[in-house]
Amino acid sequence: MTQTYRIASIPGDGIGPEVVAEARTVLDAVLASEGARADYADYDLGARRWHATGETLPDSVLEELRGVDAILLGAVGDPSVPSGVLERGLLLRLRFELDHYVNLRPSKLFAGATTPLAGSPQIDFVVVREGTEGPYVGNGGAIRVGTPHEVANEVSVNTAYGVERVVRDAFARAQRRERKHLTLVHKNNVLVHAGHLWARTVAAVAPEFPDVTTDYLHVDAATIFLVTKPERFDVIVTDNLFGDILTDLAAAVTGGIGLAASGNVNPDRTTPSMFEPVHGSAPDIAGTGVADPTAAILSTALLLDHLGLSAAAARVEAAVEADLAARGPAPRSTREVGEAVLARLQG
Amino acid sequence: MTQTYRIASIPGDGIGPEVVAEARTVLDAVLASEGARADYADYDLGARRWHATGETLPDSVLEELRGVDAILLGAVGDPSVPSGVLERGLLLRLRFELDHYVNLRPSKLFAGATTPLAGSPQIDFVVVREGTEGPYVGNGGAIRVGTPHEVANEVSVNTAYGVERVVRDAFARAQRRERKHLTLVHKNNVLVHAGHLWARTVAAVAPEFPDVTTDYLHVDAATIFLVTKPERFDVIVTDNLFGDILTDLAAAVTGGIGLAASGNVNPDRTTPSMFEPVHGSAPDIAGTGVADPTAAILSTALLLDHLGLSAAAARVEAAVEADLAARGPAPRSTREVGEAVLARLQG
Ligand SMILES: CC(C)[C@H](C(=O)O)[C@@H](O)C(=O)O
Ligand SMILES: CC(C)[C@H](C(=O)O)[C@@H](O)C(=O)O
Repeated sequence: MTQTYRIASIPGDGIGPEVVAEARTVLDAVLASEGARADYADYDLGARRWHATGETLPDSVLEELRGVDAILLGAVGDPSVPSGVLERGLLLRLRFELDHYVNLRPSKLFAGATTPLAGSPQIDFVVVREGTEGPYVGNGGAIRVGTPHEVANEVSVNTAYGVERVVRDAFARAQRRERKHLTLVHKNNVLVHAGHLWARTVAAVAPEFPDVTTDYLHVDAATIFLVTKPERFDVIVTDNLFGDILTDLAAAVTGGIGLAASGNVNPDRTTPSMFEPVHGSAPDIAGTGVADPTAAILSTALLLDHLGLSAAAARVEAAVEADLAARGPAPRSTREVGEAVLARLQG
Repeated sequence: MTQTYRIASIPGDGIGPEVVAEARTVLDAVLASEGARADYADYDLGARRWHATGETLPDSVLEELRGVDAILLGAVGDPSVPSGVLERGLLLRLRFELDHYVNLRPSKLFAGATTPLAGSPQIDFVVVREGTEGPYVGNGGAIRVGTPHEVANEVSVNTAYGVERVVRDAFARAQRRERKHLTLVHKNNVLVHAGHLWARTVAAVAPEFPDVTTDYLHVDAATIFLVTKPERFDVIVTDNLFGDILTDLAAAVTGGIGLAASGNVNPDRTTPSMFEPVHGSAPDIAGTGVADPTAAILSTALLLDHLGLSAAAARVEAAVEADLAARGPAPRSTREVGEAVLARLQG
């Protein structure tokens, strides 16, 4: 009997559909060779739907999504839509409603990837970015908008409940890794209330993981180490906004945003988790067939791992690694990269 | 007649006193050769004072400081003091009380400086970081602290008044530069209220500076460009927290935090401005005489420039540049670097 996984596919905007197409081809192939298959439900959420109907994420769609095994997302955002409408109304709404409190972002410098750093350091860490709190909660507002007396506030909300669960997840991930080291990144010398909650929580959870070592860095200092000494990092746990910033920088030093995968994970499995490349919709190159689908393909490895198919996940990662190591200097199309990874997978 | 400038000296914690000593020697020398002198008022603010008296910045000291021509600060923060006490009570209190709304942070890759980036790109930009608003306002709080029901909030406050004045200053600085390009950095797809205020303000002020071109980057994307294409930046204007993060990264790619100078400037000159290295108190190397005083010395160049002594400022910068270009691979002591710069200045 063939095991069937129900996967919601949300290609989204810009290059999203192009990279999701390649990711699905790879996912189908690896599932087939495991004697399994994906049954996709397609959702045309994003700019087109918003222009047509004014909807970003209808409640009925959200209810349907709750029933799938996992979600594969391309990218969200388009210059024809006011900044924030799709990001808040679709992408962040999914992360918040589905309680994706672990935003998992591995950073590994594969052989063959091009880092802007001199001397090609060894880089292999994972960022556990909190996904449901912090400055992302949408708790802002403004008065006297458009007048010289406008005041615009944004509130970062942080709870012991929310911080503790993501910190515990990060400790557990660190414990499963070779170096077993966890770095908390925050800005507790300025954001003293939120920052001290994070620091106290790490200290409180640490005794449960006696073999995991910990340290602390302010977010500004962390950006320095990411370019001068990235090999110092093993697992980073940090808040939603700092995680957003650090993972783009981490992607840049490990070969670029075209390679960076992510998972929006609910470790409690009460809702489906969602996998997406870290990159955005890149409207400037959308439709030209040059977007790198590697990040989307690697995101399917995270998806497979989350579904318990860790051997399949490892095969996808190995195929990408082999492809990167062997690729020539000539630019390749989206389709060419997809086909090359597929060939490695099947070869 | 000798022109005398009244300079408040706040060496502060850790390596602060060591680097301020060298900076003062250089400042004295360059002033003397301009037929001027500095009259220093010394303030022992920082960890020692806090332990002795519980004071961070007494009101009486703040009143005295209002009367000086400029403030030279070393570094603030010590592991023996809870994180945030000195940062918020002393450093940030000075920036806020003295209305230092322009936190000026030039980033230039000097010949001889070592960048972690491959290919040594051309880097010469300046970050205009807002200094009196945003998440730094100290408008946070927490309830049920230490219980599983703790909630810790931090409020970012942004006003049309505060954003407009710093944006106008950034435009004016861009207009005085060769490339005349201004990049707004924010996160307006998530922090929509604050972000849109910033974006609208840049759009509203732009017509006053028709020869300045502008663009916008999300903060996460900006960190990517800082390592993959730093030469794209000319002037960056951004909020207090994003500016904090970007300028540490900018320092890292232009030779390290040991070289990065900053000015906390009140362009309206209703209060004295304050000049300090971007680096912190570095307690791990305090007292060992190995801290690099270059950032503090370059901060005196910003101080001189602010006092209208632009030729003297240029001489300090040229002396540092010559020293960096000629330095050998051997590590130098704080004193040796100070003396080498002094020799260049007088040679
Ligand atoms: C598109 C945007 C809302 C999103 C974020 O800020 O989380 C993106 O930058 C990311 O990192 O996934
Ligand atoms: C010490 C700290 C409060 C300060 C800041 O966050 O502004 C420092 O990092 C800086 O950049 O000057």
